[in-house]
Amino acid sequence: MKKIEKIRIIPLGGLNEIGKNMTLIECGKDIIVVDCGMAFPDEDMPGVDYVIPDVQYLLKNKDRVAAIFLTHGHEDHIGALPYVLREINVPVYGTRMTLGIVINKLREFHLEKKTSLMQVSAGDSVKIGSMEVEYIHTNHSIADSAALAIHTPCGVIFHTGDFKIDSCPIDGDIIDLPRIGELGKQGILALLSDSTGAERPGHSMSESKVGSSLNDIFMRAEKKRIIVATFASNVHRVQQIINIAAQYGRKVAVSGRSMITVLEAAMQLGYTKVPKGILIDIDKIKKIPPEQLVVITTGSQGEPMSALYRMAYSEHKVVEINENDLVIVSASAIPGNEKPVGNMVNELFRSGAEVVYESHNEIHASGHACQDELKMMLGLTRPKFFIPVHGEYRHLRHHANLAEGMGIAKENIIISEIGDIIELDKSSAKIVGTVPAGRVLVDGLGVGDVGNVVLRDRKHLAQDGLIVAVAVVDSRTGAMFGEPEIITRGFVYTRENEELMDNVKQIVTTVISNGAKGKQADWSYNAKNKIRDDLDRYIYDQTMRKPMILPVVKYI
Amino acid sequence: MKKIEKIRIIPLGGLNEIGKNMTLIECGKDIIVVDCGMAFPDEDMPGVDYVIPDVQYLLKNKDRVAAIFLTHGHEDHIGALPYVLREINVPVYGTRMTLGIVINKLREFHLEKKTSLMQVSAGDSVKIGSMEVEYIHTNHSIADSAALAIHTPCGVIFHTGDFKIDSCPIDGDIIDLPRIGELGKQGILALLSDSTGAERPGHSMSESKVGSSLNDIFMRAEKKRIIVATFASNVHRVQQIINIAAQYGRKVAVSGRSMITVLEAAMQLGYTKVPKGILIDIDKIKKIPPEQLVVITTGSQGEPMSALYRMAYSEHKVVEINENDLVIVSASAIPGNEKPVGNMVNELFRSGAEVVYESHNEIHASGHACQDELKMMLGLTRPKFFIPVHGEYRHLRHHANLAEGMGIAKENIIISEIGDIIELDKSSAKIVGTVPAGRVLVDGLGVGDVGNVVLRDRKHLAQDGLIVAVAVVDSRTGAMFGEPEIITRGFVYTRENEELMDNVKQIVTTVISNGAKGKQADWSYNAKNKIRDDLDRYIYDQTMRKPMILPVVKYI
Repeated sequence: MKKIEKIRIIPLGGLNEIGKNMTLIECGKDIIVVDCGMAFPDEDMPGVDYVIPDVQYLLKNKDRVAAIFLTHGHEDHIGALPYVLREINVPVYGTRMTLGIVINKLREFHLEKKTSLMQVSAGDSVKIGSMEVEYIHTNHSIADSAALAIHTPCGVIFHTGDFKIDSCPIDGDIIDLPRIGELGKQGILALLSDSTGAERPGHSMSESKVGSSLNDIFMRAEKKRIIVATFASNVHRVQQIINIAAQYGRKVAVSGRSMITVLEAAMQLGYTKVPKGILIDIDKIKKIPPEQLVVITTGSQGEPMSALYRMAYSEHKVVEINENDLVIVSASAIPGNEKPVGNMVNELFRSGAEVVYESHNEIHASGHACQDELKMMLGLTRPKFFIPVHGEYRHLRHHANLAEGMGIAKENIIISEIGDIIELDKSSAKIVGTVPAGRVLVDGLGVGDVGNVVLRDRKHLAQDGLIVAVAVVDSRTGAMFGEPEIITRGFVYTRENEELMDNVKQIVTTVISNGAKGKQADWSYNAKNKIRDDLDRYIYDQTMRKPMILPVVKYI
Repeated sequence: MKKIEKIRIIPLGGLNEIGKNMTLIECGKDIIVVDCGMAFPDEDMPGVDYVIPDVQYLLKNKDRVAAIFLTHGHEDHIGALPYVLREINVPVYGTRMTLGIVINKLREFHLEKKTSLMQVSAGDSVKIGSMEVEYIHTNHSIADSAALAIHTPCGVIFHTGDFKIDSCPIDGDIIDLPRIGELGKQGILALLSDSTGAERPGHSMSESKVGSSLNDIFMRAEKKRIIVATFASNVHRVQQIINIAAQYGRKVAVSGRSMITVLEAAMQLGYTKVPKGILIDIDKIKKIPPEQLVVITTGSQGEPMSALYRMAYSEHKVVEINENDLVIVSASAIPGNEKPVGNMVNELFRSGAEVVYESHNEIHASGHACQDELKMMLGLTRPKFFIPVHGEYRHLRHHANLAEGMGIAKENIIISEIGDIIELDKSSAKIVGTVPAGRVLVDGLGVGDVGNVVLRDRKHLAQDGLIVAVAVVDSRTGAMFGEPEIITRGFVYTRENEELMDNVKQIVTTVISNGAKGKQADWSYNAKNKIRDDLDRYIYDQTMRKPMILPVVKYI
């Protein structure tokens, strides 16, 4: 067998955008995939449900793909799994909690029986061809998260996954710094490290600090019903809320589908421990005095139709917010969600509740390392090459600056784009080419059938609506049958703009009747263009708006 | 004359939403208007340009409206002026800087000659019937801002406008706390106070601190071109940038229409002092070595097509961003703008520039009082009644809590909604009714012709696009002429979905041919509904999407 002297790293997601993390490692004939995430659409993708990575390169190299390795169970690391597994059936490795979440997801797509889920624990190694993938325990805002040390013939590729360094984690299990340091001493070829917190100085807050803040708030609120919203997957946060509830003799009810599903999985797997008799059904909370109750709920991001949203807008079937409620939003708004969260908080206040939110209350801790932790990671791993991942360009740039400050040579730091092929051997790393990469939009059942033209049209329609103008023409005489029919949507109230509508009809009529005089073969095409141009101009003159104009000219 | 024993305060804007501030004070037969602002639309108002207050109550009481009093020149306090002045021609009072901005705005609407602009200075009082409106100097992120003490027969209504307490303002002119304290000692009936910063503990940063931070950054960047983005109307910020530029021997060029307009006005009025020879035309910057140049620009909110945005996306006609640039975004993102600002910063980094942004660099100071300042205002004015204004519900609620903490009785604090009529006499204040109030949408030339139905359609179109299905039918036989014509926009790529499109045609054809057998008078109406229902169902089954379906059935 030929000696492997080069390996390749190809990021297909996670750079210059949040979400849809995915990295390929190629070593000889083998390709392994690290994470397989999806993203939520932003405001320039109206109507889109999810965004997943473009994996055509993987599909083309189907036979070489050996396995998918998951670092943890967040959507931006596992969400695209069903879409990829439908096309490429390979084993999926992950820790117990991660696979516990994955299996629920695969069930929705009827893939749970077709997929080999391979459970690993921190400390385990998996051999794939000439590579060995070692799982290393980390701290993050979900249980059982891991970094990967990928041992290759060219050296170790260390992928942090999402991490923070929590010296007081809820499960008592600190990120495995000793093993990371040991690997660093032995020599790490390349470090791929989480850049999410690279703009934030200092050290992230410990998850256990959140517990003590919540405890203070519970203490002050002894006569109130308490409602706490957080991320369903933040098992440790939920555990803390349950513990504090128990301590104050409160029962716990749970609302929100994902909260119920994840809590069930976490209880089954032993990640969440619930004292006997404390959980009660949400439909039975009327039987418990409010001051003896805690409701744990989804909706911390103000998502429409989430449980807390429905409570805020008086649409929840059991929980009615009142003056006797204390609502704690134990999360920070993900960028882009600030307004919906703010609006929801306004509604909660309006119903009379006391609402505790925002960071200065210390009721939320980020799951991502801040600058001091990132430096610690750089210092322990002492990599030859550094590739910041998981962040927008500004995060990657800040992270690169930190690495430079830690003594990594500028030319050994690679800020890449998705699709770049980073080729490494023992002494060099460079971008040698690209593979197709990008975003694939999922809308309803359609995967990839919404593209730029469709999005552009949606945005145009959202701006100024549309005008449909239908004319039926006698193909022998060129005369129009009756009047043109005009339909508008999203433009103006037509009833209050009769004159405008009459003039639109007149313009269409004029185009058709002028056309009747000419004798062009492609007259229908020309008539449509003329109607579009004339209406465009007229409407803009009158309204300074540019609705989409859809002329239909039928010759019969 | 009958003695006036009651006055009324009616907020028409500024409560439970940011923007479009407007408050009416009614005393006897006179109505005065405090501020007349507009807001920018949020994401649930696609295509809308501005939002202005509904002023139908004012129009109905046209004869009683005596004057408009402006507290300062920000859009959310003056932006709706042209729309209101078109309907009600009354004098407009404001300080010199405020009117300097207002006149530019009125010119765009050809209203500058028809409007009486009445210039006042801090300390001046204006008599309107039995009221007297006193201007009192404040600090804010625009020069020449004022609070109003409205002396009425029932007592003093004190309206803070937007304010902060800056002990080190750039013009040396601290908010007139002595006069405010004096009024407080004499007795203030009701305080209406800015709630924007009510969630923030402590004291806002002084504007002069920004100068010292900028100075540090300039010092470190001596070999670089410096580009600073800020709000055009923040005259003091711009002054500081000019001063520091001068100190480091740099020339100053200005980019962005509003920056040029406001700077010209501020220079003319003497609010901005520019050392001779320092300003150069943006088109001539190539003649100056980059390290001797500062460009002051608009675009701190990432607004598409603003000057900094164009620079970031390589669309600016003179400024090309490169590795030798230091870009300072001297502003914080207004809620909702976090993403566009972040994206713009990414692009600037990607072009190689160093970018300084975000609050921990102390390169921006808010213009709004934090909790300690709000308490100072409450403590000095010692009002009988307190009405928090200028904020979302959660800000008003926090401000109310502060007031309670300062000893104002709970029952004397009024959190009202726009349109509420707050009636006060010397010893009581209550909401006695409402007037019509709300938002009027401005889209292009249309004012108020975009309403909920139009917005709902726009949002529907943005989500899933539309399908137009046109059938032309022979009214004698009920047979269709040729095939139905199907047009889609914003739905899917039709070329890649031929089978779907063929089935859509087939469904339309079936509806029409079944109809030919029946003999209903309102057949066209029924056919349209049947096409809509059948296509809706079919499309949702196939795609899980719900595009807008527009059937057109023409009988000839």
